Amino acid sequence: MDFREKLRIEPASSVKLADIDPSFHGNIKDKDEGKAELSAVLDEITPLQEKLYAEKKHALLIVLQGIDAAGKDGVCWHVIRAMNPQGTYVASFKQPTETEKAHDFLWRVHQRTPALGQVAVFNRSHYEDVLVARVHNLVPERVWSKRYRQINHFEEFLSENGVSIVKFFLYISKDEQLDRFEKRLEDKERQWKISGSDYSERERWDDYIAAYEDMLSKCSTEHAPWYVLPANRKWFRNLAAAKIIHQTLLDMQIETPTPTVDLDEIYRKYHHAVRNG
Amino acid sequence: MDFREKLRIEPASSVKLADIDPSFHGNIKDKDEGKAELSAVLDEITPLQEKLYAEKKHALLIVLQGIDAAGKDGVCWHVIRAMNPQGTYVASFKQPTETEKAHDFLWRVHQRTPALGQVAVFNRSHYEDVLVARVHNLVPERVWSKRYRQINHFEEFLSENGVSIVKFFLYISKDEQLDRFEKRLEDKERQWKISGSDYSERERWDDYIAAYEDMLSKCSTEHAPWYVLPANRKWFRNLAAAKIIHQTLLDMQIETPTPTVDLDEIYRKYHHAVRNG
Repeated sequence: MDFREKLRIEPASSVKLADIDPSFHGNIKDKDEGKAELSAVLDEITPLQEKLYAEKKHALLIVLQGIDAAGKDGVCWHVIRAMNPQGTYVASFKQPTETEKAHDFLWRVHQRTPALGQVAVFNRSHYEDVLVARVHNLVPERVWSKRYRQINHFEEFLSENGVSIVKFFLYISKDEQLDRFEKRLEDKERQWKISGSDYSERERWDDYIAAYEDMLSKCSTEHAPWYVLPANRKWFRNLAAAKIIHQTLLDMQIETPTPTVDLDEIYRKYHHAVRNG
Repeated sequence: MDFREKLRIEPASSVKLADIDPSFHGNIKDKDEGKAELSAVLDEITPLQEKLYAEKKHALLIVLQGIDAAGKDGVCWHVIRAMNPQGTYVASFKQPTETEKAHDFLWRVHQRTPALGQVAVFNRSHYEDVLVARVHNLVPERVWSKRYRQINHFEEFLSENGVSIVKFFLYISKDEQLDRFEKRLEDKERQWKISGSDYSERERWDDYIAAYEDMLSKCSTEHAPWYVLPANRKWFRNLAAAKIIHQTLLDMQIETPTPTVDLDEIYRKYHHAVRNG
């Protein structure tokens, strides 16, 4: 299965999430098969990220969005760990500080974009400014409605400066979310994660779905495509993310840099001399 | 073996690196045994880091120093990857920029110290300012000689603000370094790493050793101990780093936070209702 082909949102399409099955798992039979495939593709990602880091001519930005408990942290843990922490980082965007609020909404985001050679993961992102900001009327519609275009321009600018962008929307069903909340409630080590707002936000489910659909419809572009990852099955979500990251890295045609020094000369001068002397 | 006991530099001691065997591997028989132990200890580190991230009352700062090819990047890859990239980052300190040079030497470092809940790895650090700065006379002795005290005060301040600090000096022999350079020369994927300065720095080996000895002697404190990790054997280096990090995390007595909401009420309100309804 070509995961990118299958899961990518075409530019200027009209997404209806109800048409997508959050339990979809393609032609991957079960969890065991999924995990084996994941392990194989992670092994391919490791040397590619190493090369990216060495070459310093490309960067990769991975954007993660999804409703509470959709698995954004899980993707960080199970997929991003294939990459050397040297050269990789996760930037989480929470409620903006007073200073951040005094700037435009892309200001704090721009500061965390990856340098050439780096992979950045945005756990939540500038898209919160057309999601929570819209659902909770934090800004009027005349403000947030312009942001889709502003985001497209910003991402185009990044891509013209060597940053490849992939955006994952982790899609779980409303029932699956409730199940996951319940599992947290039952696990002493994870109970602290539960907050009252998890449930109050849940009451706005339909508003969020509408906001996600607009985000996906308006902001999936050639240079920064959105992928909807069916995420009810964690193993499929991880595998799909890894496969798409892998293919994106391959497309970047990263090359190991050539040595900056005369290797023969160095070899003669320092190594043979020592070995034979 | 108690790795901390064995490898820690006592405060106000007088370190002679010639007295330490860089090929030391304690009572660990061989690479296979070392790797098995490493895997076990990494499995212990994972949930501790998760707890640290959840609790947000402690932070951990891991400082890595060592001569070229000593294995700083290797520790990042083989040890730090036990931690969720969410909540962990590597800060590399290269030659300071013009802006950084216009500030005191701790200015850029302070900005990258970990927030409560985070683990930061400094790949090189403020210690470069008593190492390369001293060996190359980048500043006069009257300047660098004060820095040991300044660093101790800075680290004491951090530790009084919830940051536990462990510092690893990765110690390889001069022959081992040359072997590693040669392996890089022979590996097409890693040749780019070789630079002329690797070899010219090597000529200052003794100056660096003297600077390392002073750093270890003057800056190993109760609140921020230096550990000398014998690093000729990569597997022992990784195991020692992991063991010491593990023990340090245990000592921090991190606790899973208690829930901020009434779990029973939430359960009744949202879960039983749905389950039984």
